[in-house]
Amino acid sequence: MIDKSNSFPVKIPQTEQERILIIGGGFGGLQLVRNLKNAPYQVVMVDRHNYHTFQPLLYQVATGGLEPDSIGTPLRKIFTGQGNFIFRMAEAKLVDPEEKRLYTNIGHIDYDYLVFASGSKTNYFGMVDVQTYAMPMKTIPQAIDLRAMLLENLEKAMYTVTEHEVETLIDIVVVGGGPTGVETAGALAELKMRVLPADYPELDFNRMDIYLVELGPKLLAGMSEKASRKTKQFLEKLGVNIWLNTGLVSFDGKVAKFNNGKEIPTTTLIFSAGVAANTIPGLDHESLHRSGRILVNENLKVKGYDNIYAVGDVAGFSADEGKTFLPMVAPVAIQQGQYLAKLFRKKAKNGFKYKDRGAMATIGKNKAVADLGPFKLTGVAAWFVWMFVHLMSIVGFRNRLLVFINWLWYYIFYRQNIRLIIRPFKREIPEPKEETVKV
Amino acid sequence: MIDKSNSFPVKIPQTEQERILIIGGGFGGLQLVRNLKNAPYQVVMVDRHNYHTFQPLLYQVATGGLEPDSIGTPLRKIFTGQGNFIFRMAEAKLVDPEEKRLYTNIGHIDYDYLVFASGSKTNYFGMVDVQTYAMPMKTIPQAIDLRAMLLENLEKAMYTVTEHEVETLIDIVVVGGGPTGVETAGALAELKMRVLPADYPELDFNRMDIYLVELGPKLLAGMSEKASRKTKQFLEKLGVNIWLNTGLVSFDGKVAKFNNGKEIPTTTLIFSAGVAANTIPGLDHESLHRSGRILVNENLKVKGYDNIYAVGDVAGFSADEGKTFLPMVAPVAIQQGQYLAKLFRKKAKNGFKYKDRGAMATIGKNKAVADLGPFKLTGVAAWFVWMFVHLMSIVGFRNRLLVFINWLWYYIFYRQNIRLIIRPFKREIPEPKEETVKV
Repeated sequence: MIDKSNSFPVKIPQTEQERILIIGGGFGGLQLVRNLKNAPYQVVMVDRHNYHTFQPLLYQVATGGLEPDSIGTPLRKIFTGQGNFIFRMAEAKLVDPEEKRLYTNIGHIDYDYLVFASGSKTNYFGMVDVQTYAMPMKTIPQAIDLRAMLLENLEKAMYTVTEHEVETLIDIVVVGGGPTGVETAGALAELKMRVLPADYPELDFNRMDIYLVELGPKLLAGMSEKASRKTKQFLEKLGVNIWLNTGLVSFDGKVAKFNNGKEIPTTTLIFSAGVAANTIPGLDHESLHRSGRILVNENLKVKGYDNIYAVGDVAGFSADEGKTFLPMVAPVAIQQGQYLAKLFRKKAKNGFKYKDRGAMATIGKNKAVADLGPFKLTGVAAWFVWMFVHLMSIVGFRNRLLVFINWLWYYIFYRQNIRLIIRPFKREIPEPKEETVKV
Repeated sequence: MIDKSNSFPVKIPQTEQERILIIGGGFGGLQLVRNLKNAPYQVVMVDRHNYHTFQPLLYQVATGGLEPDSIGTPLRKIFTGQGNFIFRMAEAKLVDPEEKRLYTNIGHIDYDYLVFASGSKTNYFGMVDVQTYAMPMKTIPQAIDLRAMLLENLEKAMYTVTEHEVETLIDIVVVGGGPTGVETAGALAELKMRVLPADYPELDFNRMDIYLVELGPKLLAGMSEKASRKTKQFLEKLGVNIWLNTGLVSFDGKVAKFNNGKEIPTTTLIFSAGVAANTIPGLDHESLHRSGRILVNENLKVKGYDNIYAVGDVAGFSADEGKTFLPMVAPVAIQQGQYLAKLFRKKAKNGFKYKDRGAMATIGKNKAVADLGPFKLTGVAAWFVWMFVHLMSIVGFRNRLLVFINWLWYYIFYRQNIRLIIRPFKREIPEPKEETVKV
């Protein structure tokens, strides 16, 4: 895939300082760079996007609650004025630890220290058909695409004649009962109840079925019993059909089949049932867990290497001697990024310790669940905590303000607002005029 | 292109009322529908987008000043609760006046009255190479694409080695000195001065040249002498290179060539030098002006037909016996849409009269020109008038609020904010596992 002999170095100013090269501008990478401000290193980051994505709110972009621009912040803007920071928009492809060199789609970059902060990607568990036809929701372009698809299907339903085809277009299956699946299903249910009937008076929305399908015996498996139970109640109240203990078997873009023998005819299957570490080739086999996560020690140093680290979803950090890894969630990445910066500043002590401050999920207006240590909140209180915590976590005051206005608007008018079907611009190129003469 | 014999009718509820079919949801179509509320007609609109675009601010989307979602309003949302309104997202392809039938990409629709409100498209004057490589700016997807291209070029410049290639990536040519060209050049110049140097400290922005090229002897040809002169001064102060009396000859994506023999190496050429009426086949040749505009009489009725009308850019309406047409600008479309609604309500008298309330353009912060009848404003006063008028013209209170916040932000901090490179989501489909055995 990468031809090493044909690769050129990426132009980067040379300094006297040692170079820390970071793959990925997610929560982990962001905290690391921020906390390396004025540290005696040259900090180089590569990311395939020029922006940081606030992933916990992607589902609101997909369901028309927020503009894409308000959950993305340009990485260059975040680190404006941070003199030791260099950004290159590039996709990491291959690492060669011997050469201390990272190969990317724009050339190679040498490093003194390498940090994997490359997050996770959707895990289809090898189901090629699902990967081909289902909608993932890990990036802003994917969320915009999903929003366009949901609305296009409704537009198609307006001129589709047979009942069966109409239902195939409007029914939605969400696979995966974790936070993303739960929040997406809740937002879709509110769209169905509050917004769409006014937009499409010709359509009977009682015919629109929303399914949430989970392989395990409960929703939000990582949270408390009470949170799971309440979440199920909230969703059912919103009219979501919940199938527990059910696995997706196949999806061909028209029919989703499950291991309980049931089938749902639908064009829209949102797949949020699994994530896998987002790695690149080049590390020793011994450094990787069979799940794909990169094994790190208590200092987040990758097994078998002295100058390679990993933080966040991609890192397999275990606090119980390898029995379980920390979950793939933003707070872990944030704390690990902060810890690693301390380590580089030689101020870290005693190894990384994760402070679990709890978990939460929102299901709809005034409906959320939050496990905050001994406090298990549900309903309105949890909803306000959720909103406050998320609002404060968004990068940049301007985005925070725009999200706040959108949410306030939603709270008052109880309607999502953003419903443009934005499809990529396709150029229509005319055929050049034929100048040859037919014989 | 359209096979009539293979076409099916688009599903639309049948009513007792006569059907008015409108092609296009721009300024003209919008006013027409709005003013036909509760009129005794079934009002059907087709548009290839599901939203109305506030075109005068497209250039701010392209240059990172506004989110795309705040200048687009879903057509269904605008007419929520308007009982006699039906929308179908479809692209008009062909009209058959004999059958009273419009053929679209989703089937055909019969009408009693047909209204062309299909606006205009970029006119490349037959230059296929320009159409292939230049960036137009007539739709939201085009504006997002342009924004992505401008930023991607800067990212590429960061790792490009030769001086010549770097300048090819960062120099920008705007062709066309009308309002769009002037406003775009001004916004780009402010980006260059205020935003980009902080984002790209490695790049010397003195090397970035912005050109504005106009075929005629002055900028903003439709406005007063004073406005033209001041606009030129404002732009020159912002560092824009203005070439008057200069025509584009060719552009191959790398070099733009002009009729004065000069060449500019650039990857970015923004083409806003011409628009043409956006028509479809089917009307009699006699009904069309050689420019492509549809000839209408004083009641906006298309020449040669009793039940076909045209409003806005696509209509060729002349107040001086065919010598000149009204300009292709939003106020004409708005007033014609309103007039036509009156006509359908049988309340129109004396034919359409255009009330010219003036014209304006903005060049940068505190810099604008406005011809308002006898008042020729320039500078800060014109800028505030421009902002007020545009703000009030945006459809929907929510979008107005968001645009206002963005502008206020800009006024205080003097920086455009939106710099995500959003490229369409491309699925990576793995090859299905090979199950055959190599022999």
